[in-house]
Amino acid sequence: MAYEPRHMKWWGWGDEDVQFNSSAHPGFWPYAKSVLEIEADEFSAQHWKLDAINLPEARVDEPFLNKLRSFLAPTQISKDKKERVVHAYGKGFRDLFRLRHGLANSAPDLIIYPRSEREICLTLRAAADRDVVVIPFGGGSNISGCLERMDAGRVTVSLDMSRMRRVLEVDAHSCTARIEGGIFGPELEQQLSKYGLTLGHFPDSFLHSTLGGWIATRSAGMQSDKYGKIEDMVIAVRMVTTEGILTTRAVPKSSNGIDVNHICIGSEGTLGVITEATMRVHPRPELRVVSGYLFPEFESGIAAMHECVRQECMPAMVRLNDPDKTALSLAFRPPPSPLSHAAGRLFKAYLRAKGFVLPRACLMLTAVEGRQNEVARRLSQAEAIYRRFGAVCMGESAGKSFEATKFDFPHIRDFLLDRNVTTDVSETSTVWSNIIPLYRETMEVLRARILESGVRPWTGCHISHTYQSGASVYFTFGFKQQSGHEMEQYLRVKRAAQQAFIDHGATLSHHHAVGTEHLPWLAADISPLGVQAIRAIKNALDPANIMNPGRLQPSSNPLEEWMRLPHTAHG
Amino acid sequence: MAYEPRHMKWWGWGDEDVQFNSSAHPGFWPYAKSVLEIEADEFSAQHWKLDAINLPEARVDEPFLNKLRSFLAPTQISKDKKERVVHAYGKGFRDLFRLRHGLANSAPDLIIYPRSEREICLTLRAAADRDVVVIPFGGGSNISGCLERMDAGRVTVSLDMSRMRRVLEVDAHSCTARIEGGIFGPELEQQLSKYGLTLGHFPDSFLHSTLGGWIATRSAGMQSDKYGKIEDMVIAVRMVTTEGILTTRAVPKSSNGIDVNHICIGSEGTLGVITEATMRVHPRPELRVVSGYLFPEFESGIAAMHECVRQECMPAMVRLNDPDKTALSLAFRPPPSPLSHAAGRLFKAYLRAKGFVLPRACLMLTAVEGRQNEVARRLSQAEAIYRRFGAVCMGESAGKSFEATKFDFPHIRDFLLDRNVTTDVSETSTVWSNIIPLYRETMEVLRARILESGVRPWTGCHISHTYQSGASVYFTFGFKQQSGHEMEQYLRVKRAAQQAFIDHGATLSHHHAVGTEHLPWLAADISPLGVQAIRAIKNALDPANIMNPGRLQPSSNPLEEWMRLPHTAHG
Repeated sequence: MAYEPRHMKWWGWGDEDVQFNSSAHPGFWPYAKSVLEIEADEFSAQHWKLDAINLPEARVDEPFLNKLRSFLAPTQISKDKKERVVHAYGKGFRDLFRLRHGLANSAPDLIIYPRSEREICLTLRAAADRDVVVIPFGGGSNISGCLERMDAGRVTVSLDMSRMRRVLEVDAHSCTARIEGGIFGPELEQQLSKYGLTLGHFPDSFLHSTLGGWIATRSAGMQSDKYGKIEDMVIAVRMVTTEGILTTRAVPKSSNGIDVNHICIGSEGTLGVITEATMRVHPRPELRVVSGYLFPEFESGIAAMHECVRQECMPAMVRLNDPDKTALSLAFRPPPSPLSHAAGRLFKAYLRAKGFVLPRACLMLTAVEGRQNEVARRLSQAEAIYRRFGAVCMGESAGKSFEATKFDFPHIRDFLLDRNVTTDVSETSTVWSNIIPLYRETMEVLRARILESGVRPWTGCHISHTYQSGASVYFTFGFKQQSGHEMEQYLRVKRAAQQAFIDHGATLSHHHAVGTEHLPWLAADISPLGVQAIRAIKNALDPANIMNPGRLQPSSNPLEEWMRLPHTAHG
Repeated sequence: MAYEPRHMKWWGWGDEDVQFNSSAHPGFWPYAKSVLEIEADEFSAQHWKLDAINLPEARVDEPFLNKLRSFLAPTQISKDKKERVVHAYGKGFRDLFRLRHGLANSAPDLIIYPRSEREICLTLRAAADRDVVVIPFGGGSNISGCLERMDAGRVTVSLDMSRMRRVLEVDAHSCTARIEGGIFGPELEQQLSKYGLTLGHFPDSFLHSTLGGWIATRSAGMQSDKYGKIEDMVIAVRMVTTEGILTTRAVPKSSNGIDVNHICIGSEGTLGVITEATMRVHPRPELRVVSGYLFPEFESGIAAMHECVRQECMPAMVRLNDPDKTALSLAFRPPPSPLSHAAGRLFKAYLRAKGFVLPRACLMLTAVEGRQNEVARRLSQAEAIYRRFGAVCMGESAGKSFEATKFDFPHIRDFLLDRNVTTDVSETSTVWSNIIPLYRETMEVLRARILESGVRPWTGCHISHTYQSGASVYFTFGFKQQSGHEMEQYLRVKRAAQQAFIDHGATLSHHHAVGTEHLPWLAADISPLGVQAIRAIKNALDPANIMNPGRLQPSSNPLEEWMRLPHTAHG
């Protein structure tokens, strides 16, 4: 069956008819209520009505619209209210909270659906002529505020890439594929699978995000340990700008001066539209095994991950939960049968006998994939290492349950928002020697900032991607909303996490991009001169400043502006 | 014993007291004479005298010099003739040919040896104030013309980094090291070895090139198959510019917008001076095994390399010679003993019996390194693949002879230049499916262009670095000089190779940088808009245009200019 991309629901994650199924996870809400000290179930809403959204009237630039109509069909241009709301934001807490409160000031005035590079060239030219802002839109899954309209004063068009989703060319011998930027994860994998190939890029947003979006934000998939981050997979790009098309050659490596692929990668829509890319692809693995392990504590789990890296025994994926995230995972399990309940009690007794102090235990999920014999070899090597660090294997059932639900996690936020619970994430990366210090500091400030608003904190962390020199460290936090002050409460906590990263030698984000959420820390991360270099590229490739303006360019007092963000005119 | 960097001889490669020892390779010159149809030994010169160099008088800017004297010691400033000649060029054919003919128009007016980042900051500020050109100088080993003075009209200072060569900080746990840019290969490895670590970067120029130079040119070491190219090893950089210092954080991966590390990497001295970098380093391998194999033909050797990549069985190094390069390697062997001579005859008979057509046979050298058991496993896996493609193992003796002489190859050029033979290289990379077509086309045009000057061509090729999607393809060519027209003859051949790369989907260079030699093909490689983006960065970070001007910025008719290069005022 052919894949058809659909817009996600405007009030949350995923398709309109899909939501978190709490009856399949009966332990989850009781766990959340208990840790967050929530007494009664309170619902903010259950049915989201478009009527409740107070949408600013669309600005119209007739000459621009007429120009668009000269090369786009009527079905490629939309001013529909729902379309405008869907394209207003990504899926961060700030985005969803505002929409659920009827605020959609960031809605574009117009949405267009180009079908070709030529149509994009013509659109950008017309937009530059009429000073119209263009925000490229892939799947709309970004949670860092990359899609938010920063410039309320100008006509703004959302350029939705979902009709440019062909795999244009596959060189199966060289394992490369030239692919249009608007393709979604499932269709990309479906088309590559005809050649026995895979891209190997499976971010949490896989179902609802696009190749162009991944490249523009320097995305990482769950299997980056084996396949690399998206920037490691890009061989060549084509990016349409108002000044022409930036193109590079499909060669594995080069020494042709400054690598201009890296000017397009991570550009967050500020320079142009990534219309296509030639990507490194891989033979589909013969076998994939996902297993769960329990470590006595977080430190021993991290040490085991690190030892695997040292021994060049990289799994395809490895995720290690800290004790709190482990407790969440356990609460997330399907309802136990009487038999499994009894088995669980026995297993706990076994763990205690092995010296585990249960509240400190940490769950790790490991995926190994490739040729059959290679998988067996690597798995046994990894397990030998894990055992050395005290791990107990929980078998493939934990892995199977992860595989079955791995793209569902973002739905939980909606479930919690429905119940007046704020939850979000901040993630970073650091070198091995800094992981534990960074973890402790960040957890401490997160908890302290949440407590300041008089509610119980829930904080958890997992290590999500490993590299030779370090790993990504991914924090999740949740708390009961402080009625009437939800946004300030959120910003205070989010700010604390980001500041902790920068104060302790880490980066502003490992794979969620800068957007608006992380902009105040950009100059500290890449130095003021780094920001200046990006500004120079922006001025050269987008002299009319029409491409997603305001991104990657912190103002003189970005943090103050950031704290005011949700209350300003652009909303 | 402490390592002390020395300048290479100005008339050729390597230390002044080291040269190609032809008596250790008695077969080499007879082979070269035979294939190049050289009848008598003719020497262009044997003793190179500095007196013969006609050096333009050094331009002096007194206020600049006074400023320098305010923060540099007298020993850090030089106007010495030999110093000026040594810093005039790199080591390409054009460089050496001109010096050997008494031309050193590219000599800087002044050489300075800063000892700290602060001194570099002050130097650049003073240079910008006085419109003085600064050309950063590492080991002076570049063969693409990166060090050539493009702007004859301004006072030019060569900023020699050789006194900034400390390993500043090692995080042995995370396998990272913060290192100054002026460190040479041997000292870097010596210092890292104290921690049991290696960078794993061993370019042919290893003995005479620096970390900063490697980063500025996107260098590749022989072991890039295992350790990556230099751009894969850089975790963070510090680059001093006239506008401030661009710095990034030592984190394994990030999603902080456009990756500004990649603005410094490959910048070829045009933006600033790379004063230090945090590099990914590795535990020193327990074991290293280098073995030789003979394949029935080039195609089967390439297929075997590719199959290793597919099976994730990457050696640390793999070099496959085409038949001509194989013949050269065989001619390069040490003198045979009677016994080995007899053994050689037996081996040839064995090969014929195996169906080898000897003139088509191709030599491959493979290095595998790491932990003992890992080396054994990987070697047996690779050998099984090689055998499937018809290879015969030649054992470790071929490997030992390679290891013993691997940094000596550049000396051969001097030996041949002494004998009025021009030799140089052009290398590129392409995807697996394009290697053979590119190889055939390039070899054909190379031979045709050499023949045009009425002399016999020698051309050879080897595959030098493998990646998942392709490999680098490295061409070597040589021919008898056409007296009085040596430079035109060379340019015609070099141009044909570069044009063949661009015409057939490859890149202008895999690891030798753009410099002057490859500049005419830059816009075709990275698109005019890519060049424009680089110009914008240049204008922002070096608004006074003092840093190595003219690089990475092709003029409107770059090829015409290039063909005239050696005859223009700048020499």
